[in-house]
Amino acid sequence: MIIVIQCRDQVGLVASISSILARAGLNIVSMREHVEKEDNRFFSRIEAEGLALHEGWQQELRAALPPEASLQINPLPEKRLAVLVTREYHCLGDILLRHQFGTLGARLACVLGNHPDLGDLCRRFEVPFLHVPHEGRPREAFESALLDGLAPYQPDFLVLAKFMRILSPAFVAQYRHRIINIHHSFLPAFAGAQPYRQAFARGVKLIGATSHFVTDDLDEGPIIAQQIIPVTHRHRVEDMVRAGKEVETAVLARAMQLVFEDRVLVHRNKTIVFE
Amino acid sequence: MIIVIQCRDQVGLVASISSILARAGLNIVSMREHVEKEDNRFFSRIEAEGLALHEGWQQELRAALPPEASLQINPLPEKRLAVLVTREYHCLGDILLRHQFGTLGARLACVLGNHPDLGDLCRRFEVPFLHVPHEGRPREAFESALLDGLAPYQPDFLVLAKFMRILSPAFVAQYRHRIINIHHSFLPAFAGAQPYRQAFARGVKLIGATSHFVTDDLDEGPIIAQQIIPVTHRHRVEDMVRAGKEVETAVLARAMQLVFEDRVLVHRNKTIVFE
Amino acid sequence: MIIVIQCRDQVGLVASISSILARAGLNIVSMREHVEKEDNRFFSRIEAEGLALHEGWQQELRAALPPEASLQINPLPEKRLAVLVTREYHCLGDILLRHQFGTLGARLACVLGNHPDLGDLCRRFEVPFLHVPHEGRPREAFESALLDGLAPYQPDFLVLAKFMRILSPAFVAQYRHRIINIHHSFLPAFAGAQPYRQAFARGVKLIGATSHFVTDDLDEGPIIAQQIIPVTHRHRVEDMVRAGKEVETAVLARAMQLVFEDRVLVHRNKTIVFE
Amino acid sequence: MIIVIQCRDQVGLVASISSILARAGLNIVSMREHVEKEDNRFFSRIEAEGLALHEGWQQELRAALPPEASLQINPLPEKRLAVLVTREYHCLGDILLRHQFGTLGARLACVLGNHPDLGDLCRRFEVPFLHVPHEGRPREAFESALLDGLAPYQPDFLVLAKFMRILSPAFVAQYRHRIINIHHSFLPAFAGAQPYRQAFARGVKLIGATSHFVTDDLDEGPIIAQQIIPVTHRHRVEDMVRAGKEVETAVLARAMQLVFEDRVLVHRNKTIVFE
Repeated sequence: MIIVIQCRDQVGLVASISSILARAGLNIVSMREHVEKEDNRFFSRIEAEGLALHEGWQQELRAALPPEASLQINPLPEKRLAVLVTREYHCLGDILLRHQFGTLGARLACVLGNHPDLGDLCRRFEVPFLHVPHEGRPREAFESALLDGLAPYQPDFLVLAKFMRILSPAFVAQYRHRIINIHHSFLPAFAGAQPYRQAFARGVKLIGATSHFVTDDLDEGPIIAQQIIPVTHRHRVEDMVRAGKEVETAVLARAMQLVFEDRVLVHRNKTIVFE
Repeated sequence: MIIVIQCRDQVGLVASISSILARAGLNIVSMREHVEKEDNRFFSRIEAEGLALHEGWQQELRAALPPEASLQINPLPEKRLAVLVTREYHCLGDILLRHQFGTLGARLACVLGNHPDLGDLCRRFEVPFLHVPHEGRPREAFESALLDGLAPYQPDFLVLAKFMRILSPAFVAQYRHRIINIHHSFLPAFAGAQPYRQAFARGVKLIGATSHFVTDDLDEGPIIAQQIIPVTHRHRVEDMVRAGKEVETAVLARAMQLVFEDRVLVHRNKTIVFE
Repeated sequence: MIIVIQCRDQVGLVASISSILARAGLNIVSMREHVEKEDNRFFSRIEAEGLALHEGWQQELRAALPPEASLQINPLPEKRLAVLVTREYHCLGDILLRHQFGTLGARLACVLGNHPDLGDLCRRFEVPFLHVPHEGRPREAFESALLDGLAPYQPDFLVLAKFMRILSPAFVAQYRHRIINIHHSFLPAFAGAQPYRQAFARGVKLIGATSHFVTDDLDEGPIIAQQIIPVTHRHRVEDMVRAGKEVETAVLARAMQLVFEDRVLVHRNKTIVFE
Repeated sequence: MIIVIQCRDQVGLVASISSILARAGLNIVSMREHVEKEDNRFFSRIEAEGLALHEGWQQELRAALPPEASLQINPLPEKRLAVLVTREYHCLGDILLRHQFGTLGARLACVLGNHPDLGDLCRRFEVPFLHVPHEGRPREAFESALLDGLAPYQPDFLVLAKFMRILSPAFVAQYRHRIINIHHSFLPAFAGAQPYRQAFARGVKLIGATSHFVTDDLDEGPIIAQQIIPVTHRHRVEDMVRAGKEVETAVLARAMQLVFEDRVLVHRNKTIVFE
């Protein structure tokens, strides 16, 4: 059982939470907590085992927390996932493989692409693919078509697996802290378009990738995971692009794992990650 | 205040510990715990703040733990350190600098060298240096001279900062889990002598360093920290030695910091590190 | 055009090689060389562009090198690859994806498995899969069946993508320096069976993976690439296995890229890698 | 002997350079070259051994290169270094240690500080320290005092070892591509003041340090080396500062080594680093 808590901090919180679980006969396998001092916020993720001795412990737990607390017990045990793509296969391919072999941590419900290129790959894994073209349409119409495409699947999370369109605040608002993006730079360096071209021009010696929740501000959402690889003067832009794909795939996979295991809590524009 | 606990695991341990602290008015800033399932062992490190409301909480805490529990409250607030060296300056130099500027986390009481080479460096920082030659002496006499040299300083910890002699079980027994060594390989690869020569011969693409507690078995003690750096076919043995020194210095510094901040617990031949 | 040279070192080698190419009007885009001093061996990888002005330059080049020299011009422009697997999907899946999208650097001719489990995955990508069971057969018969399975495809390289059987010297001799293995440890640490179990028991703080050419000695062949990831006391064996798969996939992919781009030269039991 | 060349690229350059060296009886131990295609620039670093058979080879070499070529033979065999500091000891301490033990690769001529704090450390190593206060003086006067302080030592390179003042273009012009700075972020992320505070606010999961040549634009000069370390939600600003110091020291040391071994060539705003 996984319990995720976020609330105002107060003395005795760990004591009362752990006492309630102990009295219910639940064995704490892992208890992680963090206090953000400036905002006086308490965050916790608990893994517990065993059968509860009595039913009332969940009410007890809620009563022990401040009224504004966010308490989740076994949040979304089966998470439904939709993936948005454009043309690049590497992140989607990795997701399809993990899904096929039961190691994704979520059920891949569908894939939407603004280009048709990756439909064939999805069909190989019998995953529904919907081509939602963006060309010749205003963004509102495009996003409306995306939402229509998503509707039958009711996804809990969207993953932008190299989806090269910017989503409007109105769209993002429907999936608050539930859209995971992979950006092909070490944010906040090289936000925006063509980060590898920017990295090449600047002559950096490391390039990276960043997975983050999408918010209204492009490339400004809470960061979940980041990773880098070294580059040298021998790397042309296309070499960086190629090398970068490896780290993009790895970082997105890591971020999904963390999110789907309920290890990522969001506060303001930052994440608490209980690895 | 730092509280370090190791004992048999049982249901309700976190609850009772945190309740006792809460009743004493102590605010838990950070509480880390780990359960080693195979052995049913519980490990915890707690940082708490505030003035205790009543005196009896320490007794309460001890009473709440199993009788065999190890409980330390503010273990060795000022740790006294002795460093053993041979000829290489890089680890000792780093320690002297940190000590001089108050960032070592321990008080450097003295340095013992089986060669006189590093005496000059110690004198520059007004740290006592004692030359204890090993040549022409049986190991027993050498170790006896080391112990005599250490005696006036009563060190809590020994750091072997590239000390190129093997210590006997009898010597080690006097500082159980209190001797920190830096070995210039990624253990368990290349234990023993001349690890860089071994690494070169094997053609590895990464070399590393390992800091560990010293036990009776050479290079077999509980590992505290490890780190690696890439090497290529261009690295000759001497290049590996040079590059390796950087990572040796870094790993030893990291291990000392972790130990001196009471973040390292030992169980059997492994460490629990609450970073 | 790629030119790969290995021979005895002598003064003026770079001069004569580059002069011959210059006289032929070939433009050197990249010239990498290495001299192994102990053995007085010269290694070079040259990328050149342009159309040769005259035909005789290849003969000139050969004549300029010592008689025992290995000279390869555009070695195997299309490399044929066979992959041997057991049950784990992650490395094979990665290879199939790269092959499907033309980024593998080799043509995947067939996959052989000593278990049937991964046949379905291969069929999704229309890659021939042959089930060659090892059970109830002496190794000779098993290897003979493998060779029979490989025969129609005439592979240039074999990749052991988590193939859990040990190949005999007789088998290996048929693909000298052309069998690439991924071993799930940071060799030479934890050679042999169950490296993650060994790593857990030893309490290391980093785990790794090693890709190497297969030779007669198990896990002793020339290392092509290695990589590590950090682990903590929270990693149980199964967590190491899971985390390790990520690095195994990455290291094998890297090693294949290096080999298929003719960047890896072998000398004795080591590799020269012109990255 | 080290030979460093930068010039317009042309067919046959490697051939003519290596032929001249071969005819002079000089043995090429290592020859690294790079061609920047967009600008058609050729860069090379050659290590050669042996006694030249005739004197004229240097003139021959110059004649073989385009007139605008930069050719350096054994550039500054003993480099004189001045270090500018403010209050933080970690980079300076590392430099002093390496200098003391002959592993710095340059002769440390003097240290200038805009605060007096680090004078004591310099005196321990008998290195001249000059306190050049900046307070209450216009920048021109401050920089003029710095230049006066440097004058007797005629340094070839300046290292800004956590020197917290911005130097004017006029000052920088006097040491073009000869001032090495360490910036405590992964540039171009968090240029300017208080990068760790910026990093904390953004919630990044990696922090870094960048060593670069100083140009007129603050934090915009050619990057020599970069490195990162992971951080988590547990890192407050002061933890990042502390962890960052380790990587700052390491990156600056690495950059100095590369520069002092003549491995770093500058072209436009980027470096070619022949590691």
